[in-house]
Amino acid sequence: MNRRLFIQAGAIGSLAASAPFLIAAHAQTTPAAGQKRQRIVIQVSDNDPAKWNLALNNAKNLQEDVGAANVDIEIVAYGPGIGMLKLESPTGARIADAMKANVKVLACENTMRGQKLTKDDMLGGISYVPAGVTEIMRRQIEGWAYLRP
Amino acid sequence: MNRRLFIQAGAIGSLAASAPFLIAAHAQTTPAAGQKRQRIVIQVSDNDPAKWNLALNNAKNLQEDVGAANVDIEIVAYGPGIGMLKLESPTGARIADAMKANVKVLACENTMRGQKLTKDDMLGGISYVPAGVTEIMRRQIEGWAYLRP
Amino acid sequence: MNRRLFIQAGAIGSLAASAPFLIAAHAQTTPAAGQKRQRIVIQVSDNDPAKWNLALNNAKNLQEDVGAANVDIEIVAYGPGIGMLKLESPTGARIADAMKANVKVLACENTMRGQKLTKDDMLGGISYVPAGVTEIMRRQIEGWAYLRP
Repeated sequence: MNRRLFIQAGAIGSLAASAPFLIAAHAQTTPAAGQKRQRIVIQVSDNDPAKWNLALNNAKNLQEDVGAANVDIEIVAYGPGIGMLKLESPTGARIADAMKANVKVLACENTMRGQKLTKDDMLGGISYVPAGVTEIMRRQIEGWAYLRP
Repeated sequence: MNRRLFIQAGAIGSLAASAPFLIAAHAQTTPAAGQKRQRIVIQVSDNDPAKWNLALNNAKNLQEDVGAANVDIEIVAYGPGIGMLKLESPTGARIADAMKANVKVLACENTMRGQKLTKDDMLGGISYVPAGVTEIMRRQIEGWAYLRP
Repeated sequence: MNRRLFIQAGAIGSLAASAPFLIAAHAQTTPAAGQKRQRIVIQVSDNDPAKWNLALNNAKNLQEDVGAANVDIEIVAYGPGIGMLKLESPTGARIADAMKANVKVLACENTMRGQKLTKDDMLGGISYVPAGVTEIMRRQIEGWAYLRP
């Protein structure tokens, strides 16, 4: 990170410049964590409905604890976790509820290709990313927190 | 991270300019990663004493490797991991040792409510957070590293 | 991230400049994450070859998705995950391939000492860190993303 604050006060080419002086210097510091947007990407990569429910519980608890309007939540399912988002998923109803509550739910197309799944095999209303792992990396680089239930 | 604040006040090319002078120059450089405060939040969310011991080993190894004075460590137990902090926890003695070594140990009150646990059911000396998952998110947003053993 | 605030107060070419005044203030906001170096540390801490393969799949998919030249990847094996890097590891061939593709593979010497392993017991070509958990913490503090498959 590179932050430069350059303040110059001058009378350039002026014949009668009185002493130039500093008009203003303002350095805006990084906001404290409490002021930063709260964002979290939740990874689901286990073939284990208990973990899928835990991920959904975590999302719900976060929204209840800090206020749904104050936190962006993405759930990314990939690898052995992709079953969470298949049509026959036992957590289908809860995922629909989460999406209604503005939790973004993403399936990994890489994994789907590997398992010969098409969008017709998946729950309605979910979103897709080319590679779940890239999404998880990029979000963190953008400043999102990461949770692996 | 690099932060530079450069303030110059000058009369350049002025005939009557007294010597341009520096009013203030302050360059605060952000410390390199190695110089940054080392802080880590360790998640315990498995109902598995082997994982509890691993989390405690990780905390201990971190302190031994970088020096206990140079790293802030928080262990957050929530969901299926809450058993680590119950009175009958097989890791009770090790948790007491960790707290003596300034590792902060936090139980999730959300989980406790769900499992009808009160503070009387929990190990002495531990601390509490309303929601473990919020603590884990906020710490990362504040710049703490995250470990999920 | 690059943020520049440039404030200049001057009377340029003015004969009778009295007080210089603020001409411009420009704040360049943080560039999007896509412009930042993509770096990720992948943790292997389970004694489970399925997880070892998943970690290797994740590294491969990342390189294929964003281009191998655009992402730094480190795999850190420690604790119960150290078996991934032992001579007899079922993933030995894949690890050699990953290293050829510039994935850095690191074994935790702390864990090795605990399990009485020497470098002779380990796969050729891998690298070593004194403590895997410290490596994982430091990388995150340096801005690397973290993945725990």
